Amino acid sequence: MSTISRRTFNKKLTQGMAATTLLAGMPLACGMGAGQQEKKLGIALVGLGSYSAGQLAPGLVNTEHCYLAGIVTGTPAKEKQWMSQYNIPKANVYNYENFDEIAKNDAIDIVYVVLPNSMHAEFCIRSAKAGKHVICEKPMAVSVLECDAIIEACNTAGVKLSVGYRMQSDPYTNEIKRLVRKKTFGDVHYVSSDAAYVSRGNPDQWRLNKSLSGGGALLNMGVYSIQSNIYGTGMNPISVAAQEFSTMPEYFKDTDETITAQMQFPNGVVGNLFTSHNANANRLFVSFRKGWAELNPCHNYGPLAGRTSEGKEIKFPHKSQQMLQMDDFAKHIKTGSTNVAPGEMGKRDMIICEAIYQSIREGGKTVPLDLGTMGIVKS
Amino acid sequence: MSTISRRTFNKKLTQGMAATTLLAGMPLACGMGAGQQEKKLGIALVGLGSYSAGQLAPGLVNTEHCYLAGIVTGTPAKEKQWMSQYNIPKANVYNYENFDEIAKNDAIDIVYVVLPNSMHAEFCIRSAKAGKHVICEKPMAVSVLECDAIIEACNTAGVKLSVGYRMQSDPYTNEIKRLVRKKTFGDVHYVSSDAAYVSRGNPDQWRLNKSLSGGGALLNMGVYSIQSNIYGTGMNPISVAAQEFSTMPEYFKDTDETITAQMQFPNGVVGNLFTSHNANANRLFVSFRKGWAELNPCHNYGPLAGRTSEGKEIKFPHKSQQMLQMDDFAKHIKTGSTNVAPGEMGKRDMIICEAIYQSIREGGKTVPLDLGTMGIVKS
Repeated sequence: MSTISRRTFNKKLTQGMAATTLLAGMPLACGMGAGQQEKKLGIALVGLGSYSAGQLAPGLVNTEHCYLAGIVTGTPAKEKQWMSQYNIPKANVYNYENFDEIAKNDAIDIVYVVLPNSMHAEFCIRSAKAGKHVICEKPMAVSVLECDAIIEACNTAGVKLSVGYRMQSDPYTNEIKRLVRKKTFGDVHYVSSDAAYVSRGNPDQWRLNKSLSGGGALLNMGVYSIQSNIYGTGMNPISVAAQEFSTMPEYFKDTDETITAQMQFPNGVVGNLFTSHNANANRLFVSFRKGWAELNPCHNYGPLAGRTSEGKEIKFPHKSQQMLQMDDFAKHIKTGSTNVAPGEMGKRDMIICEAIYQSIREGGKTVPLDLGTMGIVKS
Repeated sequence: MSTISRRTFNKKLTQGMAATTLLAGMPLACGMGAGQQEKKLGIALVGLGSYSAGQLAPGLVNTEHCYLAGIVTGTPAKEKQWMSQYNIPKANVYNYENFDEIAKNDAIDIVYVVLPNSMHAEFCIRSAKAGKHVICEKPMAVSVLECDAIIEACNTAGVKLSVGYRMQSDPYTNEIKRLVRKKTFGDVHYVSSDAAYVSRGNPDQWRLNKSLSGGGALLNMGVYSIQSNIYGTGMNPISVAAQEFSTMPEYFKDTDETITAQMQFPNGVVGNLFTSHNANANRLFVSFRKGWAELNPCHNYGPLAGRTSEGKEIKFPHKSQQMLQMDDFAKHIKTGSTNVAPGEMGKRDMIICEAIYQSIREGGKTVPLDLGTMGIVKS
């Protein structure tokens, strides 16, 4: 890696530095003429668990507007392995003690917080204070209050904030949004979304530990089901009722195993949600006045698949959702293009999650919501 | 038509009457040798609305074990039209005043009550008292008490009773039952069933009049959704919670427009139900441990369509469900084969409907159910 920092380099480039003096190995955006060479933003992943290792880092190999510049880990053994696998210089490697020093590192433009849910707020806020743009993995936090604190910290620091909602950048998801927006089959009147998988096997996983996860199935896949109910209608719900099903309390000790929820949307639209850590279902069905569209699978890493009532397949070339997601955010930072998953969206979904838990506590009572257009992104 | 009654004729046949003396035009079961000639049972349809005219009568043209022998109608103009279209003798035509005289008519073996729901009990009971086997269109009645009265009347009269659950004879439905029973994809853990259609246009239809229908979407398509939740799990639910959505109260004045319900089954299985008179959705999804199966459409008159997680299409030659249903019942009467939709099944579903309405009245509270194996038919 060059000793010239990315930002210094970028400045020199825009000041007329000849394209031929580009240093070998510098990550540059593709598809641009020599004169338009554009710097890729450096991302540091905080937390090198299976999602970082299996999805984010591989996704960052092919990103056009950002690249894997640094890591933050509490496991020294991972440092060496990642440095060598992804060509990360020692200077861009942090642990949880020296993390705040990242503020001085111009190679890091974006911090992606991939820690257990209960640590999102702390590290997003510290990242913002370090002057870094922030991607907060979903769910945004374990409470609405924490979401507010993250948003506030990013606003104060003047950095951009996005939630790790990979589906918002996925072409299948965007095709559903397009059908809703264009009213291809008329108005939506019913949406059903299932986001569930069997996560048994390891009872010690952090997702089953409420102090780390804040909640079970709902805060894991459930937020995707909330998301697809919302992009499947193009609206925010005005009320929600919910039920919890606990059938293996010895395994799912203190987090929700299965939740169903029903949402009412404006214009008489009804949404149905199913999420579970003890069943497999991964679907979205949108019923319009004059037809339907569905995705199955809908919420996994793909390849997704879909079809419409016309018998038409919904099909796109498979691309890493994480790659698309991080590029969308990098583009937003660089060009001011739409932030497809802003903090307000994560906060809105957390308001809905809290209302779902409230309804369960109150025996299934319908909880009114007053969200207006919060978190609805016109795209 | 012969002046020899069906029963007299049948007796003569079994007493050794030569096959060559068979009267022209007598309905005989196909696929049997001359010596095995078998009498078709005569069905009388009570109520000649659109379901009788559009589905049942056409279905009876091709039935193997029964045929359209008579009609009961309050509309004189329909008498002539049906007599000529279906070759029905005047002797087998009744109205609601002289209906009980059907007891004396040996040409009628089965009475199929196709009247508005609130009239099912009265006419099923009168049919049983007339010594006729009974098919009661679904929902069986408008209360569990009425179901009990129908069952009691049939038991007392020693006649067979079946509910008009055409899906129980449909090959797609039976393929789902087979996958559940054989555990082809392992145990079921989640079922989602939507049975809904937009029934706007005629605000005067009897289905929207509670005194005739007893309820709205739930008692119309909803019972199919209950049915598919049950055959999709092979079990009865142990509890149910439900919600009602009313978005067009000016049109859906006194019947339910849209209902969602969540059922808990033994072994931690969860079922999700959506029914509506103001949305289109017609699907069944069964999630097993190792795969899934779905039908879409699932609850209409067909052709249905389905597929499994293996990418295999579920496909059968299209046959009239009503034809299959009425033949199944006629076979049951003639041979003692399984009654695939007995009265107990209709009563069980009405117990669930009443529990759903109770949950709605109680603000979504979970209502426990104690059904045992009531109405579960091993097939």
